[in-house]
Parts: sequence; C-alpha cells; structure tokens
Amino acid sequence: MADVIEKTEMELEYEALLARLREGEMDAFREAFFDLHTYEQSEFYLELEEEDRQKMYHFLSPEEVAEFFDSLELEPEEYDALFEEMDARYAASMLGAMQYDNAVDILNEVTKEKLTSFLTLMDRADAQEIRKLMNYEEDTAGGIMTTEFVSVTSLMTVREAMRHLKQMALDSETIYYVFVVDPDRKLAGILSLRELIIADDDAYIGDIMVERVVSARVSDDQEEVAQIMRDYDFLAMPVVDYQDHLVGIITADDIMDVMAEEAHEDYSRLAGMSEIEPASDSSFSTAKKRLPWLIGLTFMGMITAAMLTTFEDTLAQVAVLGAFIPIIGGMAGNSGTQSLAVAVRGIATGEIKDTSKIKLALREMGSGLITGLVCGLIIFGIITLLYDSSILGIIVGVSLLIAMTLATLLGTLIPLLMSRLNIDPAVASGPFITTANDIISLLVYFSLANAFMSYLL
Amino acid sequence: MADVIEKTEMELEYEALLARLREGEMDAFREAFFDLHTYEQSEFYLELEEEDRQKMYHFLSPEEVAEFFDSLELEPEEYDALFEEMDARYAASMLGAMQYDNAVDILNEVTKEKLTSFLTLMDRADAQEIRKLMNYEEDTAGGIMTTEFVSVTSLMTVREAMRHLKQMALDSETIYYVFVVDPDRKLAGILSLRELIIADDDAYIGDIMVERVVSARVSDDQEEVAQIMRDYDFLAMPVVDYQDHLVGIITADDIMDVMAEEAHEDYSRLAGMSEIEPASDSSFSTAKKRLPWLIGLTFMGMITAAMLTTFEDTLAQVAVLGAFIPIIGGMAGNSGTQSLAVAVRGIATGEIKDTSKIKLALREMGSGLITGLVCGLIIFGIITLLYDSSILGIIVGVSLLIAMTLATLLGTLIPLLMSRLNIDPAVASGPFITTANDIISLLVYFSLANAFMSYLL
Repeated sequence: MADVIEKTEMELEYEALLARLREGEMDAFREAFFDLHTYEQSEFYLELEEEDRQKMYHFLSPEEVAEFFDSLELEPEEYDALFEEMDARYAASMLGAMQYDNAVDILNEVTKEKLTSFLTLMDRADAQEIRKLMNYEEDTAGGIMTTEFVSVTSLMTVREAMRHLKQMALDSETIYYVFVVDPDRKLAGILSLRELIIADDDAYIGDIMVERVVSARVSDDQEEVAQIMRDYDFLAMPVVDYQDHLVGIITADDIMDVMAEEAHEDYSRLAGMSEIEPASDSSFSTAKKRLPWLIGLTFMGMITAAMLTTFEDTLAQVAVLGAFIPIIGGMAGNSGTQSLAVAVRGIATGEIKDTSKIKLALREMGSGLITGLVCGLIIFGIITLLYDSSILGIIVGVSLLIAMTLATLLGTLIPLLMSRLNIDPAVASGPFITTANDIISLLVYFSLANAFMSYLL
Repeated sequence: MADVIEKTEMELEYEALLARLREGEMDAFREAFFDLHTYEQSEFYLELEEEDRQKMYHFLSPEEVAEFFDSLELEPEEYDALFEEMDARYAASMLGAMQYDNAVDILNEVTKEKLTSFLTLMDRADAQEIRKLMNYEEDTAGGIMTTEFVSVTSLMTVREAMRHLKQMALDSETIYYVFVVDPDRKLAGILSLRELIIADDDAYIGDIMVERVVSARVSDDQEEVAQIMRDYDFLAMPVVDYQDHLVGIITADDIMDVMAEEAHEDYSRLAGMSEIEPASDSSFSTAKKRLPWLIGLTFMGMITAAMLTTFEDTLAQVAVLGAFIPIIGGMAGNSGTQSLAVAVRGIATGEIKDTSKIKLALREMGSGLITGLVCGLIIFGIITLLYDSSILGIIVGVSLLIAMTLATLLGTLIPLLMSRLNIDPAVASGPFITTANDIISLLVYFSLANAFMSYLL
C-alpha cells in the first residue's frame, strides 16, 4: 500500500525512533532510520539534544551521516556547533564522504584551523577533490558544480556505456546525463540516459551523441547558469574550464537552491534587510540584524529633516503645506521602488542587456510622467475641492508630477549605474532609494511653494 | 568537437536559418532547425515576422511546432496573437501534441470560444486528457501536474519494466522515476531509474521498490509542493487523487517555474506592483499597470494629509515640527516593511505555522521596541545637539520609539490576519503597509507635540 506521509504520522515516527536511540537498540534504530528519506533523517537529527546526537555518531558510520548531511541547509554557526561536538576524525571522514560540492559549501564557512585539520584528517583523494573545488568563487559555476559525474568516450558502444554507467551509478550525483569527452578530457558531446536507453546496444556513442552542448564556464555567475538551465529545462549542465576541459556538472537541485537564494536576497534588499530572519530568531538577534539598516536610514532621515528645517519660515507662514509632506515623499518613494524593482530583477535575470539600458531609463521616465500626471491631476482636484485653494492644488499637483518623474528615473538609474560599476544592484535597497527620493521630492515641493508664496498667503 | 555556444554565434545561426526560411529551402531549413535545442527554436520563432512564421507552419508539422511550444512562456495576449495567425485545425493539433500540463496552462488563458473550438478539433484522446486536467485549480498540484508518466506494476520483473520504459520513453515527461501502481491504480511505490539500472534483471519490482512514497494530493498548493520537492531534492513527485489513485506527476522543471513565479509575485507585491513589467513594455502600458496601485496610494496619502490638516495650528505655532514628518513616517514604514517581509515569506515557505504566530508577533514587537529605542536615542541626541532643544528631541525620539514598535507589530499582524482569512498575505503590499504606518505614526507624533506644546513654545 502507498504510504502517503502526513505531518502527524511523521512526528509519531520520530518519537518511536528517538525511543530506540535512547534505549540503545542499535539494530532497530538503524533499520527504522534507513527507512526514512535523507531529508527526513536530517530533520530528525536536527531536532535531537546533543547527547542523543552523540549516540547517533556511535550507531552510524561517517558515510551514513554524510548521506543526510548532504541535504542540510544550515547557518555557519549551526555547522560550527555540530562540528564542535563531533570527533574531528569522524567529522573529516563524514565531510569526505559527502557530495564534494556540498562539502565545499560547508568548508567555505568554517574557521581556517578547522578547515586545515579536516583536510589533513580526510582521505587524501577526497581532500584533493575538495581543495580543487575550493579554488572557485562561491557564487560561480565552479563554486556550485560537483566533480562526481559519469563520463564516457565517443568510441564506446551503447552497451559499454551502460555497463560503465551501472558501475558509476552510486558515486555520481546524477546518471541521467552522460558526458562524452575526447582523449584530451575536452567536452565533445552529451547524451541523456533517455537517449541511451532508446538507442541500439551496438551503436557508437560518437554516432548518437548530441555534439551541440550548452555548457557553463567555471567562472560564470551562478544566477546566469540558473537562468540558462531554467530556459532549457536542463536537469544537469556541464562545466568546462578555460581550455574546454570538462571539470564538473551542475544539477537541477543545486539550481533550485541558487534560485531560492537569489530571490531571497533580492527580496530582503527591497525590504531593507540583510536577510529575512528565521521566525525562530529572538527579538534581540532580529533587532541586531535590522539595526545597521535602520540606523543608516535614521541618519539619512536626519538629512531630510535638516533640509526641511531650512524651509521652517515657509511652513510657519503656510502651515497647511506640512500636511502634504507625507503624500509627496511617499508617492515619490512608491514610484521609485517600482522602477527599482523592475531594474533589479531585470538585471538579475539578464533581461536587461547593455543596449536596452537607455531604452529602459526612457521608458521609466515616460511611465513616471504619465503616472505623475494622473496622480497630480487627482490630487489637484481633491485639494481644490476640499481645501478651496486651486493654487495649493497646483503646487502639490505639480510637485507630485515632478517628484514621481524624477523618482522613477532615479529608481532605474541607480541600479543600472551600480551594475555598470560591478556592484550588486540589489544593494540599492528600497528604503535607501525611498529616502533619497524624499529629499529630492520635498526640495521640489518647498521650492515651488516658496516661489508661489505670494499667491498662497 | 564541443560546440560551446556563444551569444553572437547564435545570432549568426539564426540569421542563416532565417535566410533558408525566406528562400523556401525547406530541407535545409528543417535540418538546421532540428539541430537547435527546443528553447533556441522557440527564441528563433518568436523573433520572426508573421509572414516568416506562416512559412514555418508550412515547413513544420503541428507535432514539431509543439516541441518548442512546450518551452514558451508568454503572456496571454501573445498566445492569442499567435493563435490568431495559425489555422485553427493546425493550432488544435499542435496543442494536442504538447505536454498536457503545458497545453492546459495555455488553454486556461484563451477565450471560451477558442477553447471549445480547439478541444473539438483536437484528437479525441488528447482532448479528454486536457479536459481532465483543466478541472484542477491552476495553482494546485493538479493544475501543474502532467499525466504523461511511466507506471509499472509490482509483479513485473526489472527486465519487463525496462522494456516497458523503452517503449514509453518518448511519450513521457520524465523516465527517471518509475511509479508502481496496484491493480486498482493506487500508488504502491516508486523506483528511480538509477535503482532500476543497478538492480538484478530478474528481480521483481515489488521487491525492490520504495514503498515509502512522498506524494502530493491534487488539491495541494503548488508552493507547498515546490517546498517539499526542494527539501527532498526530488526530480519528480507523484500526485494522487482523494482515493490515492495515481493521477499525474510533477517534474522539477515545473517546480522551477513555480518557484520563479511565486518569488516574482511576492517581490512585485513588496514593491507595490501587480507584476514586474518586462523591460520591453512601453511607457504607456507600464503606466497603465502601475496606475491602479499608485491611484490607490494617492487616496490613502490624502487620508494622511487630511489627518495632518487637523494639526495645522500646531504646525503654525512650531513650524520645525514639520521637518521631522518624513523621518517619523519613513522609519515607521521601514520597520513595518521589514516585519511584513518576514511574515509574508514565512507564510509562503510554510515556516510559520499556526502555533508560532503569537510567538512571531511578540518577537517582532520586541524587535520593534529595541530598534525603536536605539533609533529614538540617536535622534534624541542629534536633535538636542543640532536644534538645541531637548524637549523637541524627546518628542521626536519618543514618537519614533512608539511608531517603530507599532509599525513592526502591524507589519506582522496584517499578513497573519490575512492568511487566517485565506487571503494571500502578499497582497498586503509594502506601500500600503507603509501608508497605514504613516497615519498612525504621525498621529502619535502630533498628539505628543500637542501635549507638550507649552514646553515647545
């Protein structure tokens, strides 16, 4: 019968498993534990107290722990804590048995001393592979690829290739693509397992392989690679070095992680945060993470206040002008955030290339003009009606038009400029653009009000 | 030799291909066209003028066009335009030859008349499958699954299963998982092709299959399914109906699209937009999409203005109060957006369950208090120093503390409340929360200022 897993069933299972662990029933524990999917194993492991985890290290080999360590996604501190409680030799063997790309992700975060110790204690061949991968930048194709793939030569027959595949099946991250290399280790072609299965057993790989391969260079940005794999619906993509040697592959599950990570990052920045804190964080640690942003914004806000203070006399003469400060600053902020969002995502997905940058800026300015005109007219109408002063209506309405146009343009230009300077445009976070737009829009507003002061009094 | 594709090479290839199309060299065109990956075929197709596309419909069969139509991701209007120029019978055959889940995605967007006509003209078996899939809500597991999968029974041997797989390989969206059903069509187990390949040819499927299957129900939300597939690193996941019958599968490429779509949606809403408009949109169409949001925000801004107008006398007496309107409103907006982002993403990823909602609200309020206290103290210090008035410093500082605490709490409570009411919390977009926080924070500020007016004068 199909065992459709419900959340509550799972909790019961975890409890039973924990009881076996605590009572020291090693065989029963192992049997039930290996029935779990590695993701479930990792969930179980993370819920344990340290002393229970210590028991697990006695019940399971480093290789068995490595299986579910591959699916963990923890913060650096959390890995540190786990390695603190593991025997160093055990931890090293475990890391060596992990998929190399995942081990590298973890080792990139530990202290230099720990890294050296782990690499020394590890099996030499594993350490060598891991050292090789650690040379690549974390967010490049080289940084997320794995070296555990199946490669064949074009002179093999389908039968020979299938036999080779069977042997390699356990040690490869995916067997659903077979990569064909020439004697020089250069990438010559690709075959999906689907094509291999349909093919005649006696056919030569060289005759049936697809020679037209889309590959990534080790230095390619992970976000670009993700975009290509998504466009092409690839389950795996080969990575080549600068001499076109096949050095690794990137698999779909890595790409899903990259996509989640990049979307998360852009989203956080738009909200003015370094990261979306986990719901389990304390108030104190949440506040600590948000404060750098908020303190920066406080100082920027003080610049706005200082600028407005120079208009103190204007405000004293016509106090009602103060009532429209939030709407002018706010609408400029809203328009600016919209065009910022378009530019940041457009750059991230590669939709915006160098040639279309000017076109985009013009498009946004046009859109700012149209929306500013509409909103300006609405506000002019309302103010003329409610405040019985068409000159106040004109001043606020025109300020809104200018503010929204400038804000829209700025919201595009700043990220485009940053990307030109090779700064991640997502750093131009929403709140900073909004505060910059506050200053500009209110300067326009009060300058206009000053100019028409005689009509307002 | 490996043919590593560069963008510029590609453009040259497209041009050569276009020349063959225009000169009517059908065989040469077909040969070169089928050398392209389906994604590249679709890129080429979309760049054409209508008359060139008409030629393509003569050179390619509906089934051949369906191959690359599967990888298109267009707006409803764009599909409409393409179907307008296609012969209805050709379009119907083409849709029937597409992967069913993709055909359904397109057919969900066309007019009722077109839908009826296509389903009538289509091969009856295809139409039936598509009608079945169209019964499911678009953003559920049923709405994104495909019915083209390989299933075997537990009584088959590995050899028989492999033979069956070879026959089905061309018509299935993935062959990398084989789903095992009992005579009742109920899901009984699962086997990866990797396990099948390693297994002994004479073994029975029932003996080697994994009985513990994680499956989705047809009505499950696509975002939850995406989360599970990402957690478990699945390449495909079975979908069952309410009687546990296997009715379809969801593949990793669908999940990547779902992830991109959901992240895109949350991001757009945070920026106060229905969608991030493509860079190719015109100013006019961009403005049209943004205006509903901006007009709504203009009216909300007028509420803030009306509220502030009631404090006109206060402003007239102490005009410098006006200088701090942007910082108080702005900081409340920033804090509120941060906690909104945490709540929206937490709900979307399922991290926030019912039980931890109160804990999250308290955590956020605590974080609001701490950050409000720090920023309030900073602003108190600066104002006391620059404006030589500690009473003004106290009023602005305390307002900031109260405003940031309330805004943080509100930023959490509103999305939590919406999710309780089964409204997508992402609708509580950043700008709306920010404007609501403007009103509350400025009310606090001016009430405080009024209360201490005698000290300010």
